[in-house]
Amino acid sequence: MFNNLDRVKDISLHNLVVGAEEAASWIQHGMTLGLSGFTRAGDAKAVPFALVERAANESFKVNIFTGASLGSDIDKLLSEAGIVHKRLPFQADATMRKHINTGDHLFVDQHLSHTAELIRSGVLPIIDFAIVEAVSITADGMIIPTTSVGNSTTFVSQAKNIIIEINVAQSEMLEGLHDIYEPADPGSRLPIPLSKVEDRIGQIGIPFDASKVRGIVFTNNLDSPSPIVPPDEETEEMAQHLIGFLRHEVSNGRLTNKLAPIQAGIGSVANAVLGGMINSEFEDLQVYSEVLQDSVFELIDAGKVNFASACSITLSQEMMDKVYGNLEEYRDKLVLRPQEITNHPEIIRRLGLISINTALEFDIYGNVNSTHVSGTRMMNGIGGSGDFARNSRIAIFVTKSIAKGGNISSIVPFVAHVDHTEHDVDVVVTEQGYADLRGLAPRERAELIINNCVHPMYKRQLQDYYEEALTRGGQTPHVLEKAFSFHTELAKNGTMLSKEKALI
Amino acid sequence: MFNNLDRVKDISLHNLVVGAEEAASWIQHGMTLGLSGFTRAGDAKAVPFALVERAANESFKVNIFTGASLGSDIDKLLSEAGIVHKRLPFQADATMRKHINTGDHLFVDQHLSHTAELIRSGVLPIIDFAIVEAVSITADGMIIPTTSVGNSTTFVSQAKNIIIEINVAQSEMLEGLHDIYEPADPGSRLPIPLSKVEDRIGQIGIPFDASKVRGIVFTNNLDSPSPIVPPDEETEEMAQHLIGFLRHEVSNGRLTNKLAPIQAGIGSVANAVLGGMINSEFEDLQVYSEVLQDSVFELIDAGKVNFASACSITLSQEMMDKVYGNLEEYRDKLVLRPQEITNHPEIIRRLGLISINTALEFDIYGNVNSTHVSGTRMMNGIGGSGDFARNSRIAIFVTKSIAKGGNISSIVPFVAHVDHTEHDVDVVVTEQGYADLRGLAPRERAELIINNCVHPMYKRQLQDYYEEALTRGGQTPHVLEKAFSFHTELAKNGTMLSKEKALI
Repeated sequence: MFNNLDRVKDISLHNLVVGAEEAASWIQHGMTLGLSGFTRAGDAKAVPFALVERAANESFKVNIFTGASLGSDIDKLLSEAGIVHKRLPFQADATMRKHINTGDHLFVDQHLSHTAELIRSGVLPIIDFAIVEAVSITADGMIIPTTSVGNSTTFVSQAKNIIIEINVAQSEMLEGLHDIYEPADPGSRLPIPLSKVEDRIGQIGIPFDASKVRGIVFTNNLDSPSPIVPPDEETEEMAQHLIGFLRHEVSNGRLTNKLAPIQAGIGSVANAVLGGMINSEFEDLQVYSEVLQDSVFELIDAGKVNFASACSITLSQEMMDKVYGNLEEYRDKLVLRPQEITNHPEIIRRLGLISINTALEFDIYGNVNSTHVSGTRMMNGIGGSGDFARNSRIAIFVTKSIAKGGNISSIVPFVAHVDHTEHDVDVVVTEQGYADLRGLAPRERAELIINNCVHPMYKRQLQDYYEEALTRGGQTPHVLEKAFSFHTELAKNGTMLSKEKALI
Repeated sequence: MFNNLDRVKDISLHNLVVGAEEAASWIQHGMTLGLSGFTRAGDAKAVPFALVERAANESFKVNIFTGASLGSDIDKLLSEAGIVHKRLPFQADATMRKHINTGDHLFVDQHLSHTAELIRSGVLPIIDFAIVEAVSITADGMIIPTTSVGNSTTFVSQAKNIIIEINVAQSEMLEGLHDIYEPADPGSRLPIPLSKVEDRIGQIGIPFDASKVRGIVFTNNLDSPSPIVPPDEETEEMAQHLIGFLRHEVSNGRLTNKLAPIQAGIGSVANAVLGGMINSEFEDLQVYSEVLQDSVFELIDAGKVNFASACSITLSQEMMDKVYGNLEEYRDKLVLRPQEITNHPEIIRRLGLISINTALEFDIYGNVNSTHVSGTRMMNGIGGSGDFARNSRIAIFVTKSIAKGGNISSIVPFVAHVDHTEHDVDVVVTEQGYADLRGLAPRERAELIINNCVHPMYKRQLQDYYEEALTRGGQTPHVLEKAFSFHTELAKNGTMLSKEKALI
């Protein structure tokens, strides 16, 4: 076995060590579980697996609350086992997605900064079991998380029972990387004392009530690596347009070459766009984000980024080996915080972030759909994009202008689901170009977006829509009966392209 | 004349006193003006009037930036004079609305907390003239505002030129009521040190660079009174449902009878709903809002509210006489702040506000339209509703379930414009009842909204839509080709009610 009692430095807890099956057996139908894990990093692994095994012979359902998406196929296995009642606040698994879209799971798509508040205030069900991964438990009673913090601080502080998974595959050198801070309840809450990206405001571990610890389980499995999607021609063009926009800001005196702290969402597009900064003139950069992907470490290695704050680290296998194999080189440039702090409006506004997130589609007035394919089918969830977009200095959304070989235009007359309103979206970027929407009225925005961002094959079709809309008038002209025509055509004919308009 | 040089305590400024016509003559075509004024309170009056007069013989256009809506028909007169190029961040005038909806004015509908940031960062055009109403100028160089603060602090700090309108109709007793604080630029910005509703964190007046003052104009006109719309049966029912919801929160231990600091939007519905608390068991209440209407003073008089913070005071003639005639009685219970502070996400989240705002319409999944009639025609603007809804402890939206004698249902399948997404809306209230959407998946929300909030005459029609949508599936089921059918039916037939479904 890989039990290593040295990792549990509070020896009074040694008698709580159990196997994952036993721990899983305590969980009953109707309970709510708070699992560690954020973007495939730092997820509790052993007890969820054991719970899935139990489901082979037993029928029960539980609520699954996490930081964000889980790795190690846990969301997939939970879904297939049929034991998920309600899931929040985010997921990114193809199988779970199917169960969500049939209505089999109730999925609550939540701003990632909101979940902790809703748990503490008693709006969400009480957490029956917090199940959190750790590298160790300190002698003075703190849980040292692994590669993410997520909502674990709040799960541990609010749960009736705590199960700690000590993952011996993770280095004890992670101790000291985390900065744990939980705001007091409103009414007695003070300012969060963080005013620089690198500030440390809390403790190195999660404090806990030892009397609530039901079990300690040992595990020995690393996080799932992030799949590597190399940049392609379009993502490189998007990166260049984004850099062009930032350069324009610098030349207008609104930014310096140090830019402002950067947030970049999860996913290959944002990763590629961030990676595109390596060969730019920008320097002494800082990252204040929710997840650190490969590109941030490439920027650190290139001497472009001098500090990065986030809630989780999600890397490719190659980068994982490099970073965790040389943690001593990176640790003074990194801090991991609870998602409530990485995504907190107070901090985002104070630091004046530049936020870069991926859109599924946006419309001619700048509303963004981040979540729903064709307006109805959930992809992953809003994640932190709303936390950042609303409060950042510059809210940027990126997407390729077309998808499915051109059958889908990512720019439509009216997005079929709104996650970010026209009030919150500053700049949109495709491989065609960017549109800086700040300070523009809707009619100005429509012209700029159609001119700069739309793929040539859809330009005329969107122009025709907009011109017909103008005959109807209004602050935000629309032809409501045709507003979703791109989407309904796609459903009917397999393409948004109308035949007569395809000729450019 | 009503010039009263005693109001200008810095005597070095006495030689700058001019008439409004002269001050207006300095303004040139293409300039950007920053006018004081927020919800009909504290607006610069004389220079805008003189500018309108100039337009009788001269053709020019200017950008008009304000705190929010202006009183004294200024927005109407500016529109009629044809001198408005771009207007932001809010208006509420019927004539201006027409010019916006024909595309004659470019209207930028902005979160009220964002404008100051966008001016300071140089994203919006430089303010050529700040024109702000004041009760006086202090000997140590501060402008004491009148009945609103709005964006005046930032207009004054950022403008190339400043014109001060000393309104002698306003009592000098207003001095000491204001608390002026402007955040430093991001990068060197510290926490805003406000953690109680009644905290004072700044100065009693707006500091200014005397070398930028071009003129001082005397005026003698009070603010426009707010029209009195007495509560009706529906608003009283809405108030009772809202109180029922709050009572439920208290009985579940999530609030006490002191509730939490309350924000209530402008308008007769929010005013009536707030007024409904007078006969409730709630006590020791505090208000942290952007505007204080009659109901707040009624609650103060009734001993229910012990402190109120806002950015402006907008009252009926009767209440104006009472409050300004007895300011000594109220002044230790009031503070007026810049709208950047009243609406700041940092403060709203820290204080844990209960926010109550008016919706034009909401949909079966909880998305809210606050601004666009039939999705295209601007009503007033989003105002502060987004600042509050996104960050408050409980975001409540209220609206009557039907309008225009039943030809319009305020609950529709898909709102024709989204100002507040499903992620940001906690509770919706109509005279039919309330739906608490917190922690619910879209399908749960739809059932609750249709059951609790929809008018009986539209219930079957919405149920039919939802049932058809369920056959299509998805996280958020929709029949996209019928999603706006309520709106297109209204445009075609003058009613959203379909004939075959009207029979209940």
